[in-house]
Amino acid sequence: MKLIENVYTDAGWDVHEKSLDPEQIVTTGSTFMIGNGYLGYRGTLSEWRAEQYTACIVTDTWDTAQPGALTELCTVPNGLYLELSVDTVPLSAIDGATEVQGYERRIDLRTGLFSRHTRWASPAGGSITLGEERLAHADNVHLIASRFTLIADRATDATVRTGIDADVWSLSGNHFARKEAFTDGELNGVSLWTVESGTQIVVVEGVRTVDSSSESMMRRLDVGLEPGGPVTIEKVVAVYHGNDTDDPRACAVRDARRALSEGFDTLYAAHSSVWQRVWAACDIEIEGDLEAQTLARFNLFHNIIHTPTHARLPIGARGLSSQVYQGAAFWDQETFNLPMFVYTRPDVARSILEYRYDTLPGARRKAERLGYRGAYYAWTSGKTGDELFPDVFFTDVLTGRPIRNHFNCWQIHISPDVVYAIDQYLTATDDWDFVERCGAEIAFEVARFIVSRAHFKKDKNRFELIRLLGPDEYHENVDNNAFTMYLSKLALETAVRLYDELSSRTPQTLARTSRRIDLTHAEVDEWREHARLFYVPAPDPDSGLIEQFDGYFELEDVTPDRLRERLIDPEEYWGWPAGIAVRTQVLKQADVLQLFALVDSFPPDVMRANYEYYEPRTEHGSSLSPSIHSIVACGCGLTDKAYRYFHEAATIDLYNRSRKVKSGGSFLGGIHTAACGGVWMMIVQGFAGFRVSGDSIELDPALPETWKTLAFRVCFRGNTLSVTTSRWRLTVSGAEENSAALSVRVSNDEWIVSPGETVQIDLPRNR
Amino acid sequence: MKLIENVYTDAGWDVHEKSLDPEQIVTTGSTFMIGNGYLGYRGTLSEWRAEQYTACIVTDTWDTAQPGALTELCTVPNGLYLELSVDTVPLSAIDGATEVQGYERRIDLRTGLFSRHTRWASPAGGSITLGEERLAHADNVHLIASRFTLIADRATDATVRTGIDADVWSLSGNHFARKEAFTDGELNGVSLWTVESGTQIVVVEGVRTVDSSSESMMRRLDVGLEPGGPVTIEKVVAVYHGNDTDDPRACAVRDARRALSEGFDTLYAAHSSVWQRVWAACDIEIEGDLEAQTLARFNLFHNIIHTPTHARLPIGARGLSSQVYQGAAFWDQETFNLPMFVYTRPDVARSILEYRYDTLPGARRKAERLGYRGAYYAWTSGKTGDELFPDVFFTDVLTGRPIRNHFNCWQIHISPDVVYAIDQYLTATDDWDFVERCGAEIAFEVARFIVSRAHFKKDKNRFELIRLLGPDEYHENVDNNAFTMYLSKLALETAVRLYDELSSRTPQTLARTSRRIDLTHAEVDEWREHARLFYVPAPDPDSGLIEQFDGYFELEDVTPDRLRERLIDPEEYWGWPAGIAVRTQVLKQADVLQLFALVDSFPPDVMRANYEYYEPRTEHGSSLSPSIHSIVACGCGLTDKAYRYFHEAATIDLYNRSRKVKSGGSFLGGIHTAACGGVWMMIVQGFAGFRVSGDSIELDPALPETWKTLAFRVCFRGNTLSVTTSRWRLTVSGAEENSAALSVRVSNDEWIVSPGETVQIDLPRNR
Repeated sequence: MKLIENVYTDAGWDVHEKSLDPEQIVTTGSTFMIGNGYLGYRGTLSEWRAEQYTACIVTDTWDTAQPGALTELCTVPNGLYLELSVDTVPLSAIDGATEVQGYERRIDLRTGLFSRHTRWASPAGGSITLGEERLAHADNVHLIASRFTLIADRATDATVRTGIDADVWSLSGNHFARKEAFTDGELNGVSLWTVESGTQIVVVEGVRTVDSSSESMMRRLDVGLEPGGPVTIEKVVAVYHGNDTDDPRACAVRDARRALSEGFDTLYAAHSSVWQRVWAACDIEIEGDLEAQTLARFNLFHNIIHTPTHARLPIGARGLSSQVYQGAAFWDQETFNLPMFVYTRPDVARSILEYRYDTLPGARRKAERLGYRGAYYAWTSGKTGDELFPDVFFTDVLTGRPIRNHFNCWQIHISPDVVYAIDQYLTATDDWDFVERCGAEIAFEVARFIVSRAHFKKDKNRFELIRLLGPDEYHENVDNNAFTMYLSKLALETAVRLYDELSSRTPQTLARTSRRIDLTHAEVDEWREHARLFYVPAPDPDSGLIEQFDGYFELEDVTPDRLRERLIDPEEYWGWPAGIAVRTQVLKQADVLQLFALVDSFPPDVMRANYEYYEPRTEHGSSLSPSIHSIVACGCGLTDKAYRYFHEAATIDLYNRSRKVKSGGSFLGGIHTAACGGVWMMIVQGFAGFRVSGDSIELDPALPETWKTLAFRVCFRGNTLSVTTSRWRLTVSGAEENSAALSVRVSNDEWIVSPGETVQIDLPRNR
Repeated sequence: MKLIENVYTDAGWDVHEKSLDPEQIVTTGSTFMIGNGYLGYRGTLSEWRAEQYTACIVTDTWDTAQPGALTELCTVPNGLYLELSVDTVPLSAIDGATEVQGYERRIDLRTGLFSRHTRWASPAGGSITLGEERLAHADNVHLIASRFTLIADRATDATVRTGIDADVWSLSGNHFARKEAFTDGELNGVSLWTVESGTQIVVVEGVRTVDSSSESMMRRLDVGLEPGGPVTIEKVVAVYHGNDTDDPRACAVRDARRALSEGFDTLYAAHSSVWQRVWAACDIEIEGDLEAQTLARFNLFHNIIHTPTHARLPIGARGLSSQVYQGAAFWDQETFNLPMFVYTRPDVARSILEYRYDTLPGARRKAERLGYRGAYYAWTSGKTGDELFPDVFFTDVLTGRPIRNHFNCWQIHISPDVVYAIDQYLTATDDWDFVERCGAEIAFEVARFIVSRAHFKKDKNRFELIRLLGPDEYHENVDNNAFTMYLSKLALETAVRLYDELSSRTPQTLARTSRRIDLTHAEVDEWREHARLFYVPAPDPDSGLIEQFDGYFELEDVTPDRLRERLIDPEEYWGWPAGIAVRTQVLKQADVLQLFALVDSFPPDVMRANYEYYEPRTEHGSSLSPSIHSIVACGCGLTDKAYRYFHEAATIDLYNRSRKVKSGGSFLGGIHTAACGGVWMMIVQGFAGFRVSGDSIELDPALPETWKTLAFRVCFRGNTLSVTTSRWRLTVSGAEENSAALSVRVSNDEWIVSPGETVQIDLPRNR
């Protein structure tokens, strides 16, 4: 099925293209990439190099190339490089020197298998085909494995040059102070040491096939092809670095050698059995809409492959698809990436939240540096949790001058967002062990931060937060931003609740935590007082509207389209300090709707009133915006609108809807992992109306017109519920292995679903 | 004596020029202007029209020409227009058609008398001279009187065209919805009605001389000149408007007719006797430095002629010299214009403070509109005290887009500044009657405003003021600006002190005031608590430095000159939101030094440390800046520096040191009245070291090298003290008519100066 120009799927489990568009290699390199949370290998062709944005990005390799440069993950030398030549003519799918007669590139989402096939008119006559299958191993995350296949329709002497291409594409400078090539038996390798910390990174490459001769990191293979008789070259690449192990070289050599001896088929079997388990937990099946099915899986796939599971590390805003946004976590991690994991693979969610625990020292340092107490999480959080976001990120295209934005100092909602995720995780898992070990301390330190950040307004008898930057980044320097206020109040309440609950559950553990962070009852009472008197802008009693921040409604009311006409340069930044949106009501994304998507306690008429007010004023300058609109539209009963926003959000990467370069020439290509996570939220929380209320799972499905059925699983406090719904009937099954019955509520009725039991529920017709 | 190119003085009581520079007519039109606080008539030549910036600006005529335009004072039709022709050739000092053989323009500062003389080669042969003397009557402020003199060296038939030129120069649109010319006997008149409120303005003109024929507002006079026999034409103009009287036409006709019959000499006598009294109170005599003497009188003169004394009205930032800054009061009124009046003509100071009382309702409206209580005075205050400053004043020259500054909403120090002036006035006058009637209520409402504007920082146990714009306008959006914090705390303390004092002095009056504004003891106790816990940034114990605002010291440290190199366009605005100074320590003016100039309780080493830190970082982008540097330099014992800044400040207008057009083409010409008031402060508070401490007058003279003696008078609680000082000896005399002895302190010694007594005090030699 053709999804859009040159984007196809066979049956919703794959995406492929039938021709190569050189204009789109940034996007398609992301589309067809593979990854395993440790490394991401872009979906480029084996003969491509740095100019084609070939990159293998490895997590936990943060480095700063020179003072003042962005700290980012390293792209490591490309061990999969392979170039095929015939009669000394290199064959390329891109340069047009040799006629391309057939072409396909594909990502198999079910097993994370990349493949490409290119057939050229051979310089020696007839045609010659290069195929490749490639995987980033899901079990041993240090491994990439590849199998090349060469086929000619007549006898051909071909030459293959393969090895490690150390000419890497790197956004913010060269990260390697030193490189050392080595061989170890049949293996080629390179050791590199990073600039800032001297961390060693090792890439080892091995080949299993016909004879080869090595020329330091590169091998030359002379391949005699017979008609129809394919020649296969298997390659493995192993990557280790000094943050994984004390001896990365030995480990890489060991793993590469072992993998080479196992062979591609064996590696693939172990790899795909992991994928089978992953999809069993988190697949979403949509019948009746193959496009939506493909989009759903494409986005879930990316939310999976960019999420580290091997260690407590962050999910990057562009994942491992490029160095953009520094391979670091933003608030999206908790609010967009995590919900899917919380309800499908809670162990992964826990690992991410443990990463937030590990980075508490960095968050404390940030708070202290800015004059606050407690934990102020980094807007851009890497290894240590120290702030990675620079004071200056954008350049004013009209003046060439740097713009000093305040993402790293005024966008404080990041801290309560983390506590929100802890609360969600606890609700979904009842994992008090995590709370005792990590979650409570995070919540306590965030409460402390909020208290030290808040101001008390005596004449109004309330605590306020002044000078904020909410999720809507077009409006910096605002007071009492609705999203930030609600989330901060929730965080204070959560801290108090966890404290009280632990006081009775595990008082000794709590006492230890309290001693460690100097926490007293008196301070907790102060949080109570703050929570009680914390200002949250309530819906206007008449209009139902919640003002995004103090004075928002007094700003110029203009539509995004009319506003756009004021641009002098299309690349202008719309926000602080003097962008065209600053003094208007036009939003990058709508904070009040974002609030509704996270906090589901607002009445439907309030949601509707605010949706109708904010939607036409939202420019969707953020990839986070459409999914939130979709979820809230579902909550308002606007299923058609919700579907349109679903489609917009789910196609951001696959249909190449976002700009790759903007705001003064910064490269911004790569996968929008938050939008990927948002796809799960739109389907499960939006169209299926899934939420947890007390000890019950609530469902309130409202499927798009074309969807016959929607099926997914959720994991709730150790038990799994399978949900299948049409527009008229809902089927829920408790897994055989569940330890308890589940309470399911639909339209105010409750069903108790015992282990192994299936319940059918007719849905009201009036939706 | 030549002061600078084409600026001369005879003996320090006049300024004159000997040739006409067409490039400088904006400046010289201000230099030679006359005024009386009711109207200002620019020092233009009688034959000039709107293109030469001829204007008669009349106070209390605020009007908005069209929605969105600036509210400003009207320029009224020019009743002094007079053009001399010979043989139908009009004689002009500016267009070069007729040879100019002699030229002088002069302002006599002692009597506020403008004069001009121009001798042309006559088109009829020989030469012909036009002279004019002109005054804005100091007693009847509705009158302008003029005497023209024509002399030819041979018999000449000249034609004079004179009358009312209704083609006015107006900055922000035409303010007259309707005009009606009329005659009343020998008088010409025009009635005009303003656009916004329909206020009637009447200009009446009369001529006393040879016959004339009228042609509706214009007269034609045929003048037969004999050699040597001058012909004199006397003119009077009367101006009234509907805010003066119910029948402005009748009043203008009455006054013009009476004045015409009295004749110029009689008018001049009454006029100059007023000036004699004024100078007796406030003249400053400087022996040994004729330039400084002239500069002093020139600036005092302007501080006088732009200050309304006929009614409770504001002093404009450009006075009545042009419509720039809307003829409205800024904070400069209290902090720069008033000190001279407080100590020389306290009745004038009281009238200005009564104006602030009259505009309390506007200040209350502004506070309420912005969500506060009490009185938030307008940044730009006209008739009603409602905010006149527009949201957008500057245009970004790089993008052509409007800049939304926050002078009108974040620069809150204006309110405590008014209370500061009340406190100063009370200290100088002991005028509790004013406090009971007006001053206390202002202080109470300002305290109320500060309380409603403040935030309490619980973790620091202090009240803060967030999001400020201090006097240094290059840094908007700052917290805890030192100047604002100190002045606000002072204002709170003043409110409490006045309340307590009135409680015992006049409890019933206080009770009435309290009832009227709903004030309770509890609220006053709240002010006490605020005053007690109000944060003021203290001098650093090591360095002595006071940080201008939170985080100032962390900004980029660069000199103004190096910073200037970053300008893309010389007309760029340096401040908010993205000007070159915003992220640096470069200041428009130094708030901490401004604080020292007003509040004299800081130790000399603290003053010195801060002077040395802030001075090299100050760009002096404000005309208020040099005088403050001069005063503080005096306090630090840096007399040479102080003199250099004195010279800079005192020559801003006379030596044409300021730009007439800037920031996107706005016309900014006119007299910097605050700088004029600052000259008194620099001399009396700076070089003479005058201050009040308790019930004593303190003097601490440190004269510039060239000054032999400095003499002035101050009025203190109804008694007058004459002060004459050399560098070595100080002479103080109590006026005969004083009712009490005065305590004078010099270097910690006290002298009691009885009425009529003169005391000589030797000054320490070590200064």
